[in-house]
Amino acid sequence: MDSSRKSILDRLNAGEVVVGDGGYVMQLERRGYVKAGHWTPEAAVEYPEAVRQLHREFLRAGANVIQTFTFYCSEDKLEISGNVTEITGAQINSAACDLAREVAYEGGALVAGGVSQTPSYLKTHNETEVKAIFKKQMDDFLKKDVDFLIVEYFEHVEEAVWAVEVLKTSTKPVGATLCISPQGDMNGVPPGECAVRLVKAGADMVGINCHLDPLTSVGTVKLMKEGLDKAGLKAHLMVQPLGFLTPECNHTGYVSLPEFPFALETRVVTRWDIHKFAREAYKAGIRYIGGCCGFEPYHIRAIAEELAAERGFLPPASEKHGPWGAGLEMHTKPWVRARARREYWENLLPASGRPKCPSMATPADE
Amino acid sequence: MDSSRKSILDRLNAGEVVVGDGGYVMQLERRGYVKAGHWTPEAAVEYPEAVRQLHREFLRAGANVIQTFTFYCSEDKLEISGNVTEITGAQINSAACDLAREVAYEGGALVAGGVSQTPSYLKTHNETEVKAIFKKQMDDFLKKDVDFLIVEYFEHVEEAVWAVEVLKTSTKPVGATLCISPQGDMNGVPPGECAVRLVKAGADMVGINCHLDPLTSVGTVKLMKEGLDKAGLKAHLMVQPLGFLTPECNHTGYVSLPEFPFALETRVVTRWDIHKFAREAYKAGIRYIGGCCGFEPYHIRAIAEELAAERGFLPPASEKHGPWGAGLEMHTKPWVRARARREYWENLLPASGRPKCPSMATPADE
Amino acid sequence: MDSSRKSILDRLNAGEVVVGDGGYVMQLERRGYVKAGHWTPEAAVEYPEAVRQLHREFLRAGANVIQTFTFYCSEDKLEISGNVTEITGAQINSAACDLAREVAYEGGALVAGGVSQTPSYLKTHNETEVKAIFKKQMDDFLKKDVDFLIVEYFEHVEEAVWAVEVLKTSTKPVGATLCISPQGDMNGVPPGECAVRLVKAGADMVGINCHLDPLTSVGTVKLMKEGLDKAGLKAHLMVQPLGFLTPECNHTGYVSLPEFPFALETRVVTRWDIHKFAREAYKAGIRYIGGCCGFEPYHIRAIAEELAAERGFLPPASEKHGPWGAGLEMHTKPWVRARARREYWENLLPASGRPKCPSMATPADE
Amino acid sequence: MDSSRKSILDRLNAGEVVVGDGGYVMQLERRGYVKAGHWTPEAAVEYPEAVRQLHREFLRAGANVIQTFTFYCSEDKLEISGNVTEITGAQINSAACDLAREVAYEGGALVAGGVSQTPSYLKTHNETEVKAIFKKQMDDFLKKDVDFLIVEYFEHVEEAVWAVEVLKTSTKPVGATLCISPQGDMNGVPPGECAVRLVKAGADMVGINCHLDPLTSVGTVKLMKEGLDKAGLKAHLMVQPLGFLTPECNHTGYVSLPEFPFALETRVVTRWDIHKFAREAYKAGIRYIGGCCGFEPYHIRAIAEELAAERGFLPPASEKHGPWGAGLEMHTKPWVRARARREYWENLLPASGRPKCPSMATPADE
Repeated sequence: MDSSRKSILDRLNAGEVVVGDGGYVMQLERRGYVKAGHWTPEAAVEYPEAVRQLHREFLRAGANVIQTFTFYCSEDKLEISGNVTEITGAQINSAACDLAREVAYEGGALVAGGVSQTPSYLKTHNETEVKAIFKKQMDDFLKKDVDFLIVEYFEHVEEAVWAVEVLKTSTKPVGATLCISPQGDMNGVPPGECAVRLVKAGADMVGINCHLDPLTSVGTVKLMKEGLDKAGLKAHLMVQPLGFLTPECNHTGYVSLPEFPFALETRVVTRWDIHKFAREAYKAGIRYIGGCCGFEPYHIRAIAEELAAERGFLPPASEKHGPWGAGLEMHTKPWVRARARREYWENLLPASGRPKCPSMATPADE
Repeated sequence: MDSSRKSILDRLNAGEVVVGDGGYVMQLERRGYVKAGHWTPEAAVEYPEAVRQLHREFLRAGANVIQTFTFYCSEDKLEISGNVTEITGAQINSAACDLAREVAYEGGALVAGGVSQTPSYLKTHNETEVKAIFKKQMDDFLKKDVDFLIVEYFEHVEEAVWAVEVLKTSTKPVGATLCISPQGDMNGVPPGECAVRLVKAGADMVGINCHLDPLTSVGTVKLMKEGLDKAGLKAHLMVQPLGFLTPECNHTGYVSLPEFPFALETRVVTRWDIHKFAREAYKAGIRYIGGCCGFEPYHIRAIAEELAAERGFLPPASEKHGPWGAGLEMHTKPWVRARARREYWENLLPASGRPKCPSMATPADE
Repeated sequence: MDSSRKSILDRLNAGEVVVGDGGYVMQLERRGYVKAGHWTPEAAVEYPEAVRQLHREFLRAGANVIQTFTFYCSEDKLEISGNVTEITGAQINSAACDLAREVAYEGGALVAGGVSQTPSYLKTHNETEVKAIFKKQMDDFLKKDVDFLIVEYFEHVEEAVWAVEVLKTSTKPVGATLCISPQGDMNGVPPGECAVRLVKAGADMVGINCHLDPLTSVGTVKLMKEGLDKAGLKAHLMVQPLGFLTPECNHTGYVSLPEFPFALETRVVTRWDIHKFAREAYKAGIRYIGGCCGFEPYHIRAIAEELAAERGFLPPASEKHGPWGAGLEMHTKPWVRARARREYWENLLPASGRPKCPSMATPADE
Repeated sequence: MDSSRKSILDRLNAGEVVVGDGGYVMQLERRGYVKAGHWTPEAAVEYPEAVRQLHREFLRAGANVIQTFTFYCSEDKLEISGNVTEITGAQINSAACDLAREVAYEGGALVAGGVSQTPSYLKTHNETEVKAIFKKQMDDFLKKDVDFLIVEYFEHVEEAVWAVEVLKTSTKPVGATLCISPQGDMNGVPPGECAVRLVKAGADMVGINCHLDPLTSVGTVKLMKEGLDKAGLKAHLMVQPLGFLTPECNHTGYVSLPEFPFALETRVVTRWDIHKFAREAYKAGIRYIGGCCGFEPYHIRAIAEELAAERGFLPPASEKHGPWGAGLEMHTKPWVRARARREYWENLLPASGRPKCPSMATPADE
């Protein structure tokens, strides 16, 4: 595939839709390799075959980017977790880059290294100290020559701007996604203004990741775009939302839900929810569309399938998936065969199977 | 581990709790390797690393049995599916046995080969023909010397009895699980009577798998036990239910739900639901406790964790899991830290996040 | 109207459908005239215009029977309540009979006096004592020459049989309705057997009232009918269920719901639920169809409207009601006009408007 | 009661809390006297005893104002309805004033006559014509010397201003309540600006009625107050919201809900919801607190009971109501007795009893 030589910006500048990958920590928690609460990525060293397999599944599902499995992999965070005593952050970053690169090569995907918000920011608010943390992780990524860098999962735009400033000292393209609500970041800076600050700091791509559900996140990216338009600025748009429905969430996102993190099953989006999300994201002008926590391989495939006409091809994993339920056509029960059509799945309102449970919770920060 | 030399019957006779593995076809569908509607296991040949990884996750989660990935792998079923043209059932069975054995060896687990209901039964009702199908698949298993055999996913006890009769011509232990409701099999034979017939046919273990949710399935196994007790018969009890909640289901189980198979997310059980299930199963005298469709590795781990005191050990994957949410103790948000306790998760009624959806659906066969 | 001269048995023997009235205590509680917890009918003396008005509304809605407002009006019950100190049970019974008669005359309806279960039964189990209580209240009714008598709201068939035996010492027709579930009375006597005992004791009409929702109650009356059929007995069938939905209830009925009695609003049936109920009751051979707690005048009208074709006439209150929403045809909003049809209301699944509430509760006796 | 001589403004100026009455048309529809779709008040002439009784119930529940039953009683509206052919609007207005006055005298309440939005406004937008309609109905009210006038149920502030201008040509105090959402009137005029216009036109009291649920309506009145504060204007605040929960509603309010008007049962507020509403309204500085469609007598009583300490007295109907469920203390079931306390009812999340129904609907105008 020729496009495998093209950088992320070449692709986006050419108008391509770039499909991101899904969420690692929550999926690997379910598979037994990440400890909830800690959420640290030492499995890249300890259980490389498990990480490699999940990378492969996302690649097969259509991802054009493989993110290194390095979430929360700054030394200050690892120390707090206390989960990993004999493995350094540098070792994890190194192993994770190798795994991502190995799989990315198998399918012409790009490798992205990401930095996330730091405990130090909240504790010290010291720009020098916080920037040093970003620099250290970036250096690990640059040693392995990742293709581009992502600033992701930031609740404060100020800290994200610092991260962009650091990452832009490299020559790599930089994307920046905040985990904020339509009301703005934790200090109330509205999404439009956040986008302006990030782009002014040098971000090539801006958008939203994690914390809130797919359609809410698309809405917030729209607000970011409006802000950029008003300021006369331009940037590519990204969205990598939760794979959970969070209609009642506020600033702190799904972390404030009573179900976080061990009873979120009922909120998982279906592949059909993702079709709708991918379409809305595309309509909003977003061209880097992926997922975060809750996104499994079949959700990523649904992005690629929804936009197959625009992109001109289906992902490898579609060999095992009939579009809109077509695989049901040969089912033995007539009523199941009747479900082998788009209209059925688009209009289905799935029941929870939990008659003693409510449909909305009261977030902890309400 | 010494127990790795012990057969399934040795273990059960010794009063051990045997943890089964989880569901393969639905989980591999989500990972991109199985086609919904067809549900055939050709990935054992095509993508062995994906199947191996899932085996490993179940093993790591605590499974003492690795079932070969051979669901619906009879020639008549493969032919109908039309999904696999260049791979024979024998090839799949052979590859699947090797994968299961490889992983089982890594952790002292046993390998079980399973046969399931056939399209031929419904079409021809011809005992000779149907038994020949079972014999053929059994022979594939015996070539690879699996440790024991399972008759599973049968809606008609008559066909299951035929399967037991065939499998008992080998010297392997035989378990038999039906996918029936508390009301009985598709012909209305009640669970107690079903159990009696299966044991009389030679089954060493009997119980329920698939089709209905965990607590409902435990209830049906209890009815089977009552039937055996009344008849003065004895057998070990098994349960491998759905990992989905199905409060409204009838005879045909979750297949009749409007959400089957592409919108079942909302019905997925939590790990805490599984704690309750494992306890109820144990109390009911069931000692072979595993899962079927919808059971992911962390659900299997929850069985092993709930019964850790009785069994005397935790599974390997518990290194990445604090009991009852203990891993949250170091979370930055105080309200999340407050969730690091059993009482919180046992009493939580998780919200669906879908206020426009109902809590119960109308099954297709109602 | 000629039929006003006909007794209840003449009407039922002639194959007429008799429409009962609705619930008094709960409706008058909402209007401010009955005290919840006490549920005693002193308003018949204190606020006759309020009782008279509710009688008139039921009559206008189509009721062929006006029940005297004398619920729980035995001296032992009044004493326990402690609500009424200067009014005797005899005064209430007398005033209530006059009010019922006055309104019944206005529309050719019959007057029925009812006796209900006593605290004495639970406390003493003394047949003589309990029968004396029934006799006393019956004598009050006979002084006012009510048209027939009803034994209603009994959880134990034994006590109901005693009541029937007492009331049959008069020459009045006697109906007997229990407030039991499909599982039987509080001692586990199944509905069929209950019906047999009541008919053998002399009841002319038998059935179910209160405690459970309309369709459940019809189901229980069907079981009563099956019992009578098997025993070769005959009786007219009655049903006067709750106007609340109670899908999770057991023996003790809606009293065990957490919402009883001050938060039952969400469970109130719509007029369209009543159409379905009236049809099902009719199909089951029930010819005395009314309501109990929760039934308002418009619910009674819905019975009369559903069965208008069979009966040959509409009730007076239908002058203010278009069938199946026809009155909406001239609404200014087009989407409201689109609701002026039967199919719309029959298929509507009304939302609760309470996204933080569950759809089913856990009864206190579960 | 001395206060019966005091005008509405005297009372409000003295800091009294004035309790309004509840909804007439929907309640009388359920009782059989109003035709849904038409919603015209001819029953004031046809069935005066039914209207009088409902007036009395509201009075007894604590209402300090009895509104004349004259909703939609302008000639242009009556003509469109076509419901009343032999009764003129003037006759209805006259009879309704007499009924309201008769009952008001029984309890020291005031009589208010109300005018509502007209079909003519939407059709012609002709100020002269529309004002003539208001003038005509006002003249009917003045003939009967009502105590004050209310402009209510207006979706366009422009038309409401015209109404205020007309009514202010009398010497009566004038209140003006719009049925708008927090987003503003049908032309997008925000609540604060609406309030300013109404007060500038002469309204002595401003606020919200109908269309949306209690807490939403209190929120909108708060926005009105903010607008007045900013403009340096003062007026008394009123709120008379729906007695239905409408979490998903937009501009057109509950009329856009699929359940309107024949399946709103599930959305009816409990008395405990009203306690919370009354408290919030009071805290917001609102001193005229009543209800609109869906408010039954017991809801009005709940306003009076919640504010009993502030007002120094309970309403007459509290003789039949223990505060916070106290009447349950003598119930025979221990679990019902356990409900005789404030904490129980304040925290109860009532179940819908409808597991196949959603908790939120899609409004027709979404």
